Parts: sequence; structure tokens; C-alpha cells
Amino acid sequence: MEFENDLQNQLNFIKEIDKVKYINRKTKLFGSDRNENDAEHSWHLALMAIVLAQHSDEPVDLLKVIKMVLIHDIVEIDAGDVFLYDNELNHNNTDNERLAAERIFGLLPANQTADLLSIWEEFEEGKTAEAKFARAMDRLEPLLQNLSNNGGTWKEFDVPYEKVYEKKSAIKLGSTNLWNYAEQKINESLDSGLLKKAKRN
Amino acid sequence: MEFENDLQNQLNFIKEIDKVKYINRKTKLFGSDRNENDAEHSWHLALMAIVLAQHSDEPVDLLKVIKMVLIHDIVEIDAGDVFLYDNELNHNNTDNERLAAERIFGLLPANQTADLLSIWEEFEEGKTAEAKFARAMDRLEPLLQNLSNNGGTWKEFDVPYEKVYEKKSAIKLGSTNLWNYAEQKINESLDSGLLKKAKRN
Repeated sequence: MEFENDLQNQLNFIKEIDKVKYINRKTKLFGSDRNENDAEHSWHLALMAIVLAQHSDEPVDLLKVIKMVLIHDIVEIDAGDVFLYDNELNHNNTDNERLAAERIFGLLPANQTADLLSIWEEFEEGKTAEAKFARAMDRLEPLLQNLSNNGGTWKEFDVPYEKVYEKKSAIKLGSTNLWNYAEQKINESLDSGLLKKAKRN
Repeated sequence: MEFENDLQNQLNFIKEIDKVKYINRKTKLFGSDRNENDAEHSWHLALMAIVLAQHSDEPVDLLKVIKMVLIHDIVEIDAGDVFLYDNELNHNNTDNERLAAERIFGLLPANQTADLLSIWEEFEEGKTAEAKFARAMDRLEPLLQNLSNNGGTWKEFDVPYEKVYEKKSAIKLGSTNLWNYAEQKINESLDSGLLKKAKRN
């Protein structure tokens, strides 16, 4: 009976998260004008974590990193996608996101609700080695996509060099190696004109 | 220098697998007429493995199960998606799939190539506890989708009850609990008319 209740709750969750496949990000696929959705994005981050784990500055529990990136955008089912460079909404807002996490992870059996809420909060806080590395993945993927798309969302939304540099610096918190690569690419993008410095007011 | 070579190879792999997002499956999203792609499918299987692991008959290394489901369809970049119920092509063919695995995982540094090839082969062989549970996830997701879609691909491609029952029986190899659920739903689908018995020749 407990098995049946657990399974039905788990199946309800599995069906609910199908909605993640409809949430489009601003960023486009590599060399493409097709928007990426949150499910595709999360899958890609998980594989990036698997193949890039050696570059983490601190040893990480890879299973936890993967769980973080697989679930980090599920709250957007209720709270919507907030663009990294949005000036109005705080990307780390998160009253709405917390309510969403409680509702959606709350579909699961209680022990799993607690586990996934805890992992999601750890990712959001960004303090542990796993959260720092997972967040580095989340910043690195759209950087690679924009580089492949002639500037992509940077150009489309007139995001200046300084803001890209500041936001992408989060990569350094997880991986010096990956930040060295990212920093070089951001600076090259300034030289090549994919990025421009902010206009002075 | 070794670090730089590793990273460039890893970034080449990360870019290459973006193509998985363009490979459409026959199956549609839950309650939808929109085809699912392989990246979305793989993301969903990974989350299913996380929340359903308790139902595996044998204890499993969850990290390995997740790696299996995240990478299992990458070979389709070269080899294409083969429908589970295809009568012409053997779904487990796999000369083409092996060549694809060697080319795509071969983009990575040698130790990672060997690791992912080994995990992919273990999944394909389906003999270990991890492979059996991962394959159960791969059979369960489209069953849930077809149930939500008034029969979905079963109706669209006239797949008879007996063939669905046979193919889905692979779930039993990984999880008695999940097979009990699946078998009940398949039999209910016969009663409700979502599935029909094969015509006698």
C-alpha cells in the first residue's frame, strides 16, 4: 500500500515535469536560431558536468552536481524563465521560485520532497563545492552557445562586455581552469566586436 | 598543456552532442501532439531514475544509471532513431550504433572515451542491475506518454497488444513493482480499446 502511494505520487511528479520541455530560454542552440528549452538545457549541463568534472577546483560529489543541474529549472514551470541579464527581475528573486519548488517537489513522497528541496536550495545558495561547480556549468553553456552564434543573446539584447564579464565570473567560483578559458573568450569577443563596452551616460 | 588539450576535446564533444536536440522520437509529449526529442527524453529518464530508484529489484549505482540514460541516445546523431516497434530494422542492430559511439565518444580524452563507451555497451547489453533498471526507464516513459495520449504511437502505427506486452516486459527485468504497474495499464488498455489484439492471418 505504501508502495502504491509512493509510486502514484512519483508518477504524478514525472508527468508534471514534462512541462519543463515547453519552457524556452532566450539562448539559442549551437549555430542555430532555434531557442533551447529547459529540459534540453538541463540534459546538456548534466553531460557537461560529467565530462568537465576534472576541472572543478574542489573535489565534487558528481551525483549531487548532476541532480542539481537536472532539477534546477523545474521551478520555472510556475515561476517562468528569468533572463540572466534581465534588469527588472532579480534572477535570484525567489519567493515565487520557492513556492514553485514546494509545490512541484511536494508531489513526491515526503522523503524525496525533502531531498530535492534541499538540493535545489543548495544550488541556489551557491556555497558548496557542488553548487559552485553546477552553477559554473549553468553559466558556461550559454557562453559557448553565444560564441557559436555570432554573439547570440549578447547582441540581440545589447548586453555590454562589463555585464557579461561580471555575470560569467561566477564560473571562477567553481573552476579556475574553466574561468581562464571563459575569460579569454570574453576578452576575444570584445576584440572581435561580438561584445561592446557599455556606453557612458 | 594536457589540460588545454583535454578541455578542447571536451568542448568539441559538448558542441557535437547539441545535435541530440534535433533528433525527434515517434512518441509525443504527455497529453500533446508535439514529438519528443532525444535530449528531452534523456533528461526525463534521468529524473525518473532518481525518483524511482527504490523500485529497482536489485540495488543500483544511481550515478551509473543516470550516465546510461543521459548518453544512451547520443549514437543516434549518426545512426538515427529506430522506432521500438519497427519491423524492418532491428532496434538492437548495432554496427551503425557502435561506429557512432566510437566516433562521438572518441571526441573526448582517451580515458573518458573508454569510460563512456563501456557504460554505453553495458546499457546495450542489458545484463547488469544498472543496465536493467536504465532500460526499464526507457520502456516506461513512452508507455506513460501513450497512456496520456489516448494510445499515442500504439494507435498511430497499429501496434497490437501482444507486441506492446512483449516489448514492455523488459521493465520486469529491472523492477517487479514497475512491471506490475505497467502490466496492469497494458491490460486495462486492451479492455478500454486503446490497444487491440493482433489480427490472425
